Amino acid sequence: MRTSRETLVGALEADLPDGAVVTDPDLLVPYRNDQASGAEAGQPAVAVFPRTTGQVQAVMRAAHARGVPVVPRGAGSGLSGGANATDGCMVLCLDRMDAIRDIRPADGYAVVEPGVINQRLRDAARTHDLWYAPDPASRDWCTIGGNIATNAGGLCCVKYGSTRDAVLGLEVVLADGRVTRIGRRGIKGVAGYDLVSLFVGSEGTLGVVTEARLRLRPLPAPPTTAIAVFPDLVSAGLAVESIMTVATPSLLELMDATTLAAVERFQPMGLDTSAAALLLAQSDLPGQAGEAEADAVVSVCEAAGATESYRSEDPVQADMLLGARRLAFPALERLGAWLLDDIAVPRSRLVETINGIERIAATRDVVIGTFGHAGDGNLHPMIVYPREDPDAGRRALAAFDDLLDLALKAGGTVSGEHGIGVIKRRVLADELDPVAQSLHDSIKQAFDPIGILNPGKALPLRP
Amino acid sequence: MRTSRETLVGALEADLPDGAVVTDPDLLVPYRNDQASGAEAGQPAVAVFPRTTGQVQAVMRAAHARGVPVVPRGAGSGLSGGANATDGCMVLCLDRMDAIRDIRPADGYAVVEPGVINQRLRDAARTHDLWYAPDPASRDWCTIGGNIATNAGGLCCVKYGSTRDAVLGLEVVLADGRVTRIGRRGIKGVAGYDLVSLFVGSEGTLGVVTEARLRLRPLPAPPTTAIAVFPDLVSAGLAVESIMTVATPSLLELMDATTLAAVERFQPMGLDTSAAALLLAQSDLPGQAGEAEADAVVSVCEAAGATESYRSEDPVQADMLLGARRLAFPALERLGAWLLDDIAVPRSRLVETINGIERIAATRDVVIGTFGHAGDGNLHPMIVYPREDPDAGRRALAAFDDLLDLALKAGGTVSGEHGIGVIKRRVLADELDPVAQSLHDSIKQAFDPIGILNPGKALPLRP
Repeated sequence: MRTSRETLVGALEADLPDGAVVTDPDLLVPYRNDQASGAEAGQPAVAVFPRTTGQVQAVMRAAHARGVPVVPRGAGSGLSGGANATDGCMVLCLDRMDAIRDIRPADGYAVVEPGVINQRLRDAARTHDLWYAPDPASRDWCTIGGNIATNAGGLCCVKYGSTRDAVLGLEVVLADGRVTRIGRRGIKGVAGYDLVSLFVGSEGTLGVVTEARLRLRPLPAPPTTAIAVFPDLVSAGLAVESIMTVATPSLLELMDATTLAAVERFQPMGLDTSAAALLLAQSDLPGQAGEAEADAVVSVCEAAGATESYRSEDPVQADMLLGARRLAFPALERLGAWLLDDIAVPRSRLVETINGIERIAATRDVVIGTFGHAGDGNLHPMIVYPREDPDAGRRALAAFDDLLDLALKAGGTVSGEHGIGVIKRRVLADELDPVAQSLHDSIKQAFDPIGILNPGKALPLRP
Repeated sequence: MRTSRETLVGALEADLPDGAVVTDPDLLVPYRNDQASGAEAGQPAVAVFPRTTGQVQAVMRAAHARGVPVVPRGAGSGLSGGANATDGCMVLCLDRMDAIRDIRPADGYAVVEPGVINQRLRDAARTHDLWYAPDPASRDWCTIGGNIATNAGGLCCVKYGSTRDAVLGLEVVLADGRVTRIGRRGIKGVAGYDLVSLFVGSEGTLGVVTEARLRLRPLPAPPTTAIAVFPDLVSAGLAVESIMTVATPSLLELMDATTLAAVERFQPMGLDTSAAALLLAQSDLPGQAGEAEADAVVSVCEAAGATESYRSEDPVQADMLLGARRLAFPALERLGAWLLDDIAVPRSRLVETINGIERIAATRDVVIGTFGHAGDGNLHPMIVYPREDPDAGRRALAAFDDLLDLALKAGGTVSGEHGIGVIKRRVLADELDPVAQSLHDSIKQAFDPIGILNPGKALPLRP
């Protein structure tokens, strides 16, 4: 008699093409984890690689009939463990569904499969002088499906919003294998509940996205860059507050001294490592308007106490600084073991939050490099500590929790853009009030009554 | 023994201040209908006027305990019958909850009660050099609560999105009287399901909004206006398509010949009533950038066949034309009985949609004036017909349905911004696929199991 795992695999093999069902434990290793550090992961029973919506439906029907947990997965670039396997699960890999099906310049949208790499869509749009705004740091390798699952952010959010703001419509396969097409083809519409927004950011717990209609915008003007160097983090925080009342920058990024030093060590480029903080802002308004907006940022930074603040006339320098910002994560990652946080607070609470981060680093005796999307109050304090030092590991975990508490006390959120995954479920229960938590349960129950879609993820974990 | 209505009223009177419970049928007349034409309405049993969240909770508990239907209501400016009473219902009027609780310039948000008039918030924001973007035509009298319930649109949507895009957080009282605070105080956050977007546009069927945290933006630059006059509607439609691939106007509005003539008759201002269509675009980019964007619009319109196309150097003229656009509805309304539609299509389908509207007017022998937010494909064909002519009334209703079918055939939606209410439930069942409809049912069931919140509204009506 065959085991239930064997019957599942048999059913999957019957429905999928050759090579699309993987059970060899060695070959399954890459599908255990996403990029989150410190997130638990189990041993999958099988990974599947469907190429069509029909195959995704078949896979879900097979799993549903047997009550097998399903973990949907894109590139595995997530930072909260949302794509981590659980023991005995089926990993549903969508990276082979990677067609850009349509780009419609007159309508301002693209139709893509979930496995399309973010940057590939950006490149394709550019050939039509169009632009796909959402730009997570992992854009060179993350997939659109993963971006939708996590409602991924990026540098553009401060002006153009998160992934949710770019999703017009979705095709979704539900837990039981039914498929639905929701949302719209135009830019605007209010017919029915906003199911699209409900799926975006639900981290694979409500359905599997098999196609997305994504908003494209006219390519913005070449950016104008403003740079400001601060003698302390607090004045940088004050500058951010003021900038956002007078300007709408297309990005507004912060790096602290620890981050600057790490980046300069990783890739020497003459960064001012004596600075306590660097702010990098861009305007994508065309011509003089962009220069005026950048100048307004410069003036605000001067008034807030910047030791140096200027509009860059040199696009190479601007690219270099933006590159430095994008290197923050890999540069800090090299310094040891790490935990990356992702808190967001109202801008008026940035200063106390920055102070709090420094206090936590001192109290817990860990190094914290802070960088992030300061313009929308979204900071990535990255805790770095020596590998193979269990006590440092414990202090780092304590600091991680302290940071989340800090964000909540400042009226903020425990996740600005990375999602809850497995690592923030407990603290999500602190962020959401009990009634909101019960609404989450009701929605999950309504969409996935037997609970096979990414169980153990994204939802609040009550004590 | 008291009737169930008497026990309800007694409970309400115990919980609410003097004068906040109205049962006199004469006084209830204004609370039977919203502004929709041709929408059925029933006779409410009672109207209540709470002033606090606690009172709204008490009201909902009283209704829930007795299974009494509750129709939440703002200013009653809705255009789909979403606030129309049903027989024996309680109308829950939120217009006395009208405090602007907080405006936080550094954080970029305001906290308001649901009864705040849209324009009042705009005025209050302006004193801080800030701007609340959503600008429905009824902004001088509609409430924020109603805007949220319908996900109201307006002229700004083409650049700044609908009401949903301005709502950061909500306080909501559920059907059973429980209260929850959802969303966030910052601009960005992905913790938990996007419950805020689910409530926005749900037309009072999932909960009652008692407070909203709304995004404010820096006040944009004074607009630069471009005007183009077309010899036929089709070339105007083609111009819209092209404009949106090269520019991001802050509004892009269309008026057809019927509308222009009606407005000119209503308020003579020297409009070119020989034109088949007028396009009105604005850029809110500052200075030269705005002029360049307006010039780009002018060039595109010339290439598309405009007989006249220019950037207005005269702010008085620009205001006058914008005023003319805002008069479209009242000017057409005076011509007889009317039905106002609200379809939205992908921009590449505008031309065939415009052709289709003209064909429907001819086939059904009715006058249709078309105006609307052409930049996001959202048209308001307004059917005007002689009062007290039953046959014309039947032809108008048939034309109304034809317009909805036209939108669906063009890949569009039956509501761009007015909502489903009571008048579009049947056709919503054509727009949503059966699986999406069942998800709507599941959500409604999860949030309001006994079905007291605005029953008979917003959800698809199956044959």
